[in-house]
Amino acid sequence: MKLIRYEFLGNVRQGKLVDNQVYPVDLGPSFPLPVSEVNLLMPIEPTKIIAVGLNYAQHARELGIANPRPSEPVIFIKPNTTLLKNEGTILLPKQSVHVEFEGELGVVISKKCKNVKRENAKEFILGYIVANDVTARDLQPKQGQWTACKAFDTFLPVGSCIETDLDLSTATITTRVNNVVRQHEPLRSMLFSVEELIEYISAIMTLMPGDVIITGTPPGVGKINPGDIIEVSISGLGTVISRAAKEM
Amino acid sequence: MKLIRYEFLGNVRQGKLVDNQVYPVDLGPSFPLPVSEVNLLMPIEPTKIIAVGLNYAQHARELGIANPRPSEPVIFIKPNTTLLKNEGTILLPKQSVHVEFEGELGVVISKKCKNVKRENAKEFILGYIVANDVTARDLQPKQGQWTACKAFDTFLPVGSCIETDLDLSTATITTRVNNVVRQHEPLRSMLFSVEELIEYISAIMTLMPGDVIITGTPPGVGKINPGDIIEVSISGLGTVISRAAKEM
Repeated sequence: MKLIRYEFLGNVRQGKLVDNQVYPVDLGPSFPLPVSEVNLLMPIEPTKIIAVGLNYAQHARELGIANPRPSEPVIFIKPNTTLLKNEGTILLPKQSVHVEFEGELGVVISKKCKNVKRENAKEFILGYIVANDVTARDLQPKQGQWTACKAFDTFLPVGSCIETDLDLSTATITTRVNNVVRQHEPLRSMLFSVEELIEYISAIMTLMPGDVIITGTPPGVGKINPGDIIEVSISGLGTVISRAAKEM
Repeated sequence: MKLIRYEFLGNVRQGKLVDNQVYPVDLGPSFPLPVSEVNLLMPIEPTKIIAVGLNYAQHARELGIANPRPSEPVIFIKPNTTLLKNEGTILLPKQSVHVEFEGELGVVISKKCKNVKRENAKEFILGYIVANDVTARDLQPKQGQWTACKAFDTFLPVGSCIETDLDLSTATITTRVNNVVRQHEPLRSMLFSVEELIEYISAIMTLMPGDVIITGTPPGVGKINPGDIIEVSISGLGTVISRAAKEM
């Protein structure tokens, strides 16, 4: 099921999307609306966004890391102000001359939880979103800490829907820049599975409904130039498309 | 002026605290209440908490960093689930055998802002809080990234009030463990001033009302043991007191 948030005639609602028809989920029975008639909104309102680094071996290698599987997931946090709606514009900041795309699977948490075991993790997953963990690569070594280079406004484009049923064992992630495929990888190549990530992260911090974990990027990351069109797609889930422009 | 949030007879209100009397600020004229009759709540509800590392030269040196002034502030983000009310219990997690206190000044943002210049920064400061950036020191080198070691639930005790008028040129911060002074430093020893931090951070991300910047810790950090009582005080502002207990 594809969950969305949308605005119609000034009202903001939760809905589900079936065959391009929008069904409200927080009203009683009602007629569906064609998706073209509603304004799709950011589907998530997280209290925090936890990001995972180096979760595909070949991406770690392309960053020059010799031993690509860390003993535990490496995590950092992106502020909510990075969130960018589908069809939005990634602003390439003045501070950087080299911003990169990173196509990623996002996991949306359904219920407050702490100390979740991996075998129970599915119980706390509302669904999945497609995301782009945009990174000012040239600012990354300067800080050591990854927060600043990944925290610029608009640096987290996400898709318009949360898919509650996605088979991670068969789905693939693909990033295209100006229609050229740059990343293409099965999600099962992740070093730490979604369930392992939820176990690791929830042993540290309480996860809240709507919180998001973005699960790392596969190999093929590359530079974003002004005017580029960047599309991240996950099969069975959807696409987030963004345009890039230099910050004025 | 000392701003607080409190609960009285089931209602949550904003108030100000004058001579141990609570005055509601979101009602019309009304009688004050003795502070002892209300339930003081967490005074902040940030959309993000930005933390600054290594902002006092002597603390950087005690962590073994030779050249203590970085070219720019080093930042990371603490999740809201770290927040702990005054008189709460810091839970020392199972994953760590060496958790440390870090007394810090917190800055609360008043208005949405981006690209603030240091000379205008005061305009966007609601006030100041006292904070303790608790850190699982033994987990810090393992990750490289500082997020995990500083993100455990209860790892950000903060005081009950926001002081709108604090003279940073004369105020001092003091941390006591079991009544023994462990940190004592004037706030003017910061490498990057509050105004410089707001300029740097707001050039990256939009700051929202209620967002908090914790500004780094002075020298003297040390281990917290179960049963310890940790008090961080800032002259003219107040104290946050916490007890430590091992997580069960």
